[in-house]
Amino acid sequence: MTTPEYRLFSLGSNPKLANEVASILGTKLSDIDVRQFADDEIYERIEQTVRGRDVYVMQGISDPVNDNFMKLMIFIDAARRASAKTINVVIPYFGYARSDRKARSREPIAARLVANMLESQGVKRVITMDLHADQVQGFFDIPVDHLISMPTLGHYFYENDLLGSDLVVVAPDHSSVGRARKFAKLLHAEWAIIDRRANDDSHTTPFGITGHVKGKRAILIDDIIDTGLSMTLASASLAAAGVTDIYAVAPHAVLSDHAVSKLAESAISKILVTNTIEVPDGKQFDKLSHLSVAAPFAEAIRRVAAFESIEDIMRSPDNLDVKL
Amino acid sequence: MTTPEYRLFSLGSNPKLANEVASILGTKLSDIDVRQFADDEIYERIEQTVRGRDVYVMQGISDPVNDNFMKLMIFIDAARRASAKTINVVIPYFGYARSDRKARSREPIAARLVANMLESQGVKRVITMDLHADQVQGFFDIPVDHLISMPTLGHYFYENDLLGSDLVVVAPDHSSVGRARKFAKLLHAEWAIIDRRANDDSHTTPFGITGHVKGKRAILIDDIIDTGLSMTLASASLAAAGVTDIYAVAPHAVLSDHAVSKLAESAISKILVTNTIEVPDGKQFDKLSHLSVAAPFAEAIRRVAAFESIEDIMRSPDNLDVKL
Amino acid sequence: MTTPEYRLFSLGSNPKLANEVASILGTKLSDIDVRQFADDEIYERIEQTVRGRDVYVMQGISDPVNDNFMKLMIFIDAARRASAKTINVVIPYFGYARSDRKARSREPIAARLVANMLESQGVKRVITMDLHADQVQGFFDIPVDHLISMPTLGHYFYENDLLGSDLVVVAPDHSSVGRARKFAKLLHAEWAIIDRRANDDSHTTPFGITGHVKGKRAILIDDIIDTGLSMTLASASLAAAGVTDIYAVAPHAVLSDHAVSKLAESAISKILVTNTIEVPDGKQFDKLSHLSVAAPFAEAIRRVAAFESIEDIMRSPDNLDVKL
Amino acid sequence: MTTPEYRLFSLGSNPKLANEVASILGTKLSDIDVRQFADDEIYERIEQTVRGRDVYVMQGISDPVNDNFMKLMIFIDAARRASAKTINVVIPYFGYARSDRKARSREPIAARLVANMLESQGVKRVITMDLHADQVQGFFDIPVDHLISMPTLGHYFYENDLLGSDLVVVAPDHSSVGRARKFAKLLHAEWAIIDRRANDDSHTTPFGITGHVKGKRAILIDDIIDTGLSMTLASASLAAAGVTDIYAVAPHAVLSDHAVSKLAESAISKILVTNTIEVPDGKQFDKLSHLSVAAPFAEAIRRVAAFESIEDIMRSPDNLDVKL
Amino acid sequence: MTTPEYRLFSLGSNPKLANEVASILGTKLSDIDVRQFADDEIYERIEQTVRGRDVYVMQGISDPVNDNFMKLMIFIDAARRASAKTINVVIPYFGYARSDRKARSREPIAARLVANMLESQGVKRVITMDLHADQVQGFFDIPVDHLISMPTLGHYFYENDLLGSDLVVVAPDHSSVGRARKFAKLLHAEWAIIDRRANDDSHTTPFGITGHVKGKRAILIDDIIDTGLSMTLASASLAAAGVTDIYAVAPHAVLSDHAVSKLAESAISKILVTNTIEVPDGKQFDKLSHLSVAAPFAEAIRRVAAFESIEDIMRSPDNLDVKL
Amino acid sequence: MTTPEYRLFSLGSNPKLANEVASILGTKLSDIDVRQFADDEIYERIEQTVRGRDVYVMQGISDPVNDNFMKLMIFIDAARRASAKTINVVIPYFGYARSDRKARSREPIAARLVANMLESQGVKRVITMDLHADQVQGFFDIPVDHLISMPTLGHYFYENDLLGSDLVVVAPDHSSVGRARKFAKLLHAEWAIIDRRANDDSHTTPFGITGHVKGKRAILIDDIIDTGLSMTLASASLAAAGVTDIYAVAPHAVLSDHAVSKLAESAISKILVTNTIEVPDGKQFDKLSHLSVAAPFAEAIRRVAAFESIEDIMRSPDNLDVKL
Repeated sequence: MTTPEYRLFSLGSNPKLANEVASILGTKLSDIDVRQFADDEIYERIEQTVRGRDVYVMQGISDPVNDNFMKLMIFIDAARRASAKTINVVIPYFGYARSDRKARSREPIAARLVANMLESQGVKRVITMDLHADQVQGFFDIPVDHLISMPTLGHYFYENDLLGSDLVVVAPDHSSVGRARKFAKLLHAEWAIIDRRANDDSHTTPFGITGHVKGKRAILIDDIIDTGLSMTLASASLAAAGVTDIYAVAPHAVLSDHAVSKLAESAISKILVTNTIEVPDGKQFDKLSHLSVAAPFAEAIRRVAAFESIEDIMRSPDNLDVKL
Repeated sequence: MTTPEYRLFSLGSNPKLANEVASILGTKLSDIDVRQFADDEIYERIEQTVRGRDVYVMQGISDPVNDNFMKLMIFIDAARRASAKTINVVIPYFGYARSDRKARSREPIAARLVANMLESQGVKRVITMDLHADQVQGFFDIPVDHLISMPTLGHYFYENDLLGSDLVVVAPDHSSVGRARKFAKLLHAEWAIIDRRANDDSHTTPFGITGHVKGKRAILIDDIIDTGLSMTLASASLAAAGVTDIYAVAPHAVLSDHAVSKLAESAISKILVTNTIEVPDGKQFDKLSHLSVAAPFAEAIRRVAAFESIEDIMRSPDNLDVKL
Repeated sequence: MTTPEYRLFSLGSNPKLANEVASILGTKLSDIDVRQFADDEIYERIEQTVRGRDVYVMQGISDPVNDNFMKLMIFIDAARRASAKTINVVIPYFGYARSDRKARSREPIAARLVANMLESQGVKRVITMDLHADQVQGFFDIPVDHLISMPTLGHYFYENDLLGSDLVVVAPDHSSVGRARKFAKLLHAEWAIIDRRANDDSHTTPFGITGHVKGKRAILIDDIIDTGLSMTLASASLAAAGVTDIYAVAPHAVLSDHAVSKLAESAISKILVTNTIEVPDGKQFDKLSHLSVAAPFAEAIRRVAAFESIEDIMRSPDNLDVKL
Repeated sequence: MTTPEYRLFSLGSNPKLANEVASILGTKLSDIDVRQFADDEIYERIEQTVRGRDVYVMQGISDPVNDNFMKLMIFIDAARRASAKTINVVIPYFGYARSDRKARSREPIAARLVANMLESQGVKRVITMDLHADQVQGFFDIPVDHLISMPTLGHYFYENDLLGSDLVVVAPDHSSVGRARKFAKLLHAEWAIIDRRANDDSHTTPFGITGHVKGKRAILIDDIIDTGLSMTLASASLAAAGVTDIYAVAPHAVLSDHAVSKLAESAISKILVTNTIEVPDGKQFDKLSHLSVAAPFAEAIRRVAAFESIEDIMRSPDNLDVKL
Repeated sequence: MTTPEYRLFSLGSNPKLANEVASILGTKLSDIDVRQFADDEIYERIEQTVRGRDVYVMQGISDPVNDNFMKLMIFIDAARRASAKTINVVIPYFGYARSDRKARSREPIAARLVANMLESQGVKRVITMDLHADQVQGFFDIPVDHLISMPTLGHYFYENDLLGSDLVVVAPDHSSVGRARKFAKLLHAEWAIIDRRANDDSHTTPFGITGHVKGKRAILIDDIIDTGLSMTLASASLAAAGVTDIYAVAPHAVLSDHAVSKLAESAISKILVTNTIEVPDGKQFDKLSHLSVAAPFAEAIRRVAAFESIEDIMRSPDNLDVKL
Repeated sequence: MTTPEYRLFSLGSNPKLANEVASILGTKLSDIDVRQFADDEIYERIEQTVRGRDVYVMQGISDPVNDNFMKLMIFIDAARRASAKTINVVIPYFGYARSDRKARSREPIAARLVANMLESQGVKRVITMDLHADQVQGFFDIPVDHLISMPTLGHYFYENDLLGSDLVVVAPDHSSVGRARKFAKLLHAEWAIIDRRANDDSHTTPFGITGHVKGKRAILIDDIIDTGLSMTLASASLAAAGVTDIYAVAPHAVLSDHAVSKLAESAISKILVTNTIEVPDGKQFDKLSHLSVAAPFAEAIRRVAAFESIEDIMRSPDNLDVKL
């Protein structure tokens, strides 16, 4: 008796990425009926047997966050009751990950809550990308295959001949220092930090900057571009400090609220994101470029299914060859 | 060392009912900051200590169902981490309860999923009203204090002198037979069933009716009025069968989609619901009357906190004195 | 390394059905020593290795209910410790299923308790038939393959040319309405209900009947025939109402107490049950016919083991072709 | 808000002991309706509120073992759902305790299974007496208050002036050596062992005895007298070896099968047991004396409820003052 | 029935701190026998009843880390079996916290493992100080009362008149930036970072420094001083960069390996630590000053026991009044 | 898709045995980096992929017990996160097994604690040898493959022609009676017991002996030789009683404290142990002989991996052929 092939499902948060992944894997998305009623209740029915199969389901926890998350939970319930062998969730964007600690008394740790809910319903593996903090892996007891977008994002600068000694990677605030250092190392660049403390009561004046940026081209790097405020303010500081060209780089393009207009009007010349979140047509604008991360997701699924190590698709930039 | 007083929170699905309950209990709702960001992520902070306290939190799982449910889950996480002694959730309307069994292969049982998520995060008690099926109590291992609206709804007919030998309680389809029988007994009335099978491919012609309804006043009873379709079709059947006056009675007023216009134009003369779900102003219409269930919820909380039996506020109509 | 064949065990509640299932599957029951000591303590020893095997164990929770259930629990403990790969319990009759909700304060929900005990000891699947309420599936988090006897029971009427426009399916009380409607649809018959409320203080006079039965042949349908009281009283009502011929149909023949004599003396001409419960010789009587459900159980086991969908052996009568 | 008084229930395995315990505690047994239907299904309803109460329930797992155990499990389910604060089970005789290890491959460890079932349904404490092996305490993660009968049994010999240098305590087989040594120490007596290996194929000839018994009065000690075989054979060996007077002592009087006739006809002059198991009238016989252990059980409950240490009612005989 | 007083135990990792805490609380440490055999197996016996008591146990997971941790686990087992009402662990130094994420494939997350082991054995609360990363709180589902040493450490500079515009707080590497920024804010000072990337293959040459330090007094701040390498190298960089006076500040003084000699010989003039870890006499040296954190630990225990909020003993330096 | 080969790891408690097992299995130990820092914190990294593999890890819980145990726990965490299919722990010597019951109030049951910690982190099987009490198997819910050394130890006496009618197997105290009886049966010898009660306040005078030993050759048998005290005292008693030749036999050679010198100077002529614990060179002495148990461990792993029964490598000596 041999185990049948795995099945790959998509629940609708990011159909383009899901189809791209399926295409790379040389498979098709399996059939599922997902509906949402007028009062927001979700109904799902899996339309092909999953009995004894390893199931991979792609669903980002992106806007509308709670609906997308519940679609995932309800799928898990249905798949488990339908005798799936294992349920592996592929979450390109892990919403709520920023709620990863109690900054004040009586706050929740929503990222752990999300982890608990997934795990308690029988999920056996999470495949995700660029968690807000690496420690979120430790919110799970099950394996987390944690992919990183840096090789993809860095590759863009190599490919477009954008490297050079006048390049500096800038952390828009102190929480991104680690990310900035890594990306700087990957691009053989210097790095700097914008210190938001200096004027944190008034966001209109430039912040302090530690490190040399004057006359340089700067890459602002963060993990999420949400309202765009942080990137916009940082770019203003850099412009005021004499930076010649400003790139903004982040894997996850939440782009909520007035992010699009703010970024469009900012001093940033180029915004580089990935497709972990599907940006709707209405939020597309000239400066915004997308890089696809379908390849690492597809490769991760292929290797997991084949019992192969994913170590080298997850290697840190520190270990990357400059040719990538 | 004595245990401090309990705290009562409301998360916003139904602020009027919550305030009414607090008022009956002679207490105030405790402070909490609940926010929802532009991408739908929810943030909460409990603003008064809950350390060592029994916490009661009121939140219906009503439209928008998933947002309201996640507000509840995030509260639970925050309260548990903040050292609440026990977390008791008061859910006036238990959304997803209709997904209580697999009607077809590979469907979820969402009501059990909701129960699991609540229980796995440390909820110690559920207080709710009129579950779609009594068996949903068995989806929990923790105590479920299951209140019923029938005494409240029945009281209306006594109080307004609407009883009489020309009154018949009608189940709009076979799944409501049990409910109809109980309500008929409470009102000393006969009962009948509408059989939707007869014409189930075409909803425009009258259905079959088992039982005598001609020349009578009829009370259609269900647990939920959602899209209003079932009640509207049933009322058409009753009108065609010579019913003189039609009331529609149900505790939970979901009123999704075009329910309001359908019901407004139907043969129903009066629609009687409770305030388990807060009906927004835009959905109010002349025929619709609300009865408050704040009293049984408040009394249940009071007794739970005082270690008193809630048996007699939960007694079945069979045991009710006709004076109620 | 290939997985070895599954093993099928029977613990003695229904050896005939177990042997029939094994025979259809072309396999033999595996060896097990089951003993019960003078004080009722049970001892079991599995006599063939189950290491790394999928184990299927057949045991109904039928009279003596508690002994049979404990035999199952003790088997599960032994099989788990003996390194069975998975433990799948096949429960033709799921005792305690009627205790599926709290009708009054401070009652147990024994069906959930049974589900918890099975699940907490490592059972990975339940295969059962005609649960008293569909919601009992939701008492489990593990897959429940829920078979139905209606195709088998309905087939009998087709095969024996018992259909016709004078046939009416009757629910012996309101709780069986859903079952009666489905069976009526399967047989292209009308349906009716017996309302036990009318005379519920005195069981000797006829009950009310909603629907037309006079001059017809009636099929009383229920899920369990336990003491036989409900069927006997219903048949008396039908006889008084001018029914010409009365069949009683139910999958589970508990036949406790004086069921046999009551049914034998009743107005029922034919009682049709299945062999989910093994009726001892002493309880056999002329009117009683058995239909075997070994085929659907065997087919379910075969498909589960082969990772095939069981959807079409579980399809609802609504989808059945009249030829079955 | 003060916690209300605890409630004490008895489920019927041993009503005399339960009443005696209640009487010592100066309380009454709380009301419960326990019924067993014709097919052995058990129904229970707790008839007084247990909301917020500490509940103590007395039920031995004695013959009929499985029915008595399921009565206990169903009570636990009902009490938990009825909002009992804690559920404490008092099990005077812990059936299945002899199944505490795998002597052969593919056997169960039923004592652990019983422990698991109790614990998984929310029991918070076990109060029991003279477990077959002390290690069974370790089958639980919850507290086990393990009482011992030796002080009660030993007291009998002191009180009736039965001590003396001609007294020897004898282990009827090697598994009782520890128990025999302790009792010997308590009575300031010598000890000996009967080696069943010598003639284990033929039970009719005397066994080997290590230690000096000739011309002495012997006390055979075990934890359980089940079929009586072990005690009967041992007494024959002692008689053949020239013992003048033989007592048999054990806390738990299972007395299954032909135990009564065997013991009545044996060389034993006096059989001393406790009332952990209620011996029915039909099994009473002249040689059999009962000592009540109601006092230690009542005292244990009192202390648990009062947060007092039970250490000194559990002290080992090694620490007992000879006056007891 | 009132709940008895809590009990406070110390398991020996840091007896001085435990005694100081007990003294502030006006109580005594409860008696416990803790022994370690020649093969390292640990034996413990709690010598006073803990029945129904809230138990607080102080034990740092400091060198010898595994022995100290197992002493804690064994205590938890003993206390739970001895019917403690709740078990609250007070862990001044949370060892293994640096293993909080997978930096490479196939590494453990030992901090989560430690959290799991504590939680799975029934711990109800953790009181600890200055976790290596705030996210470790999220490794627990139980409440974590996370104290901070910054108010205590900062107070020292106020009290000793060490503030001034020539003071700069320096992060010895990028992972301490957040900590440095907070401490700088508390002391109204500037901040800077040492970038270890510059020469990370050779630790002997000065690192890069971002920010202005020349001619200033510098405070190096970290959470742990383990081998002392990081602080020693950082101080060499600062000295080379023209810093006039160097303080090193950290709550946790692991001081393993050759830390003492390295630090003694370094350019650091003053090393300020707390007593979360008890520094043995052999590791004391002139430059090393200890500040006691007994007060915040005692106050936290007092408030937890009194159901009072601990928010204001945990407030972040951002909210601190400069007088502290 | 076929499952890849299993992997075998050794964590360093007993490298010789691990290598011997690997060699018999015809495989190599997989690579792992295990380090212990100066403060005793352990770091591990698995250096070959274990994705989808069955993992077997050998680690005795021997001196230093807590370090060795934590190495095992940390490995389990790493392997689970690295997607091992199953984790099977091979524990040649199960430390803490003697703490298997509460002998006094408020003691721990450390063996159950160890079992809980292993099981809660996802271990799927334990393979071990000669547990101190068989009941420790019941501390686990997962399968325990419990090997025994008696066939190996007994074989030595057959092979070296040491049998004979002058051979007696002696239990050094009453707790070893079962073991002595079994070994005596295996060797067709008589057995005796040393009663430590006789002089238990003063260990210098001979103990009482039940059974005939004078002029015989005696084999003292126990499961563990720890400090050697029990064996040394027993040998003195035997010598005083006229035994001609004394062997001491035990599988587990803890040899802590002054065991070596005590045993070297004792009346024992030959000490026979196995290599479940690796005896360091410094503890080797002339009288001490090691027998390897690599064969049964290797055979157990081979059979588990091949889904074969291990019954006959675990058979009790009672069933052994005298030729072994």
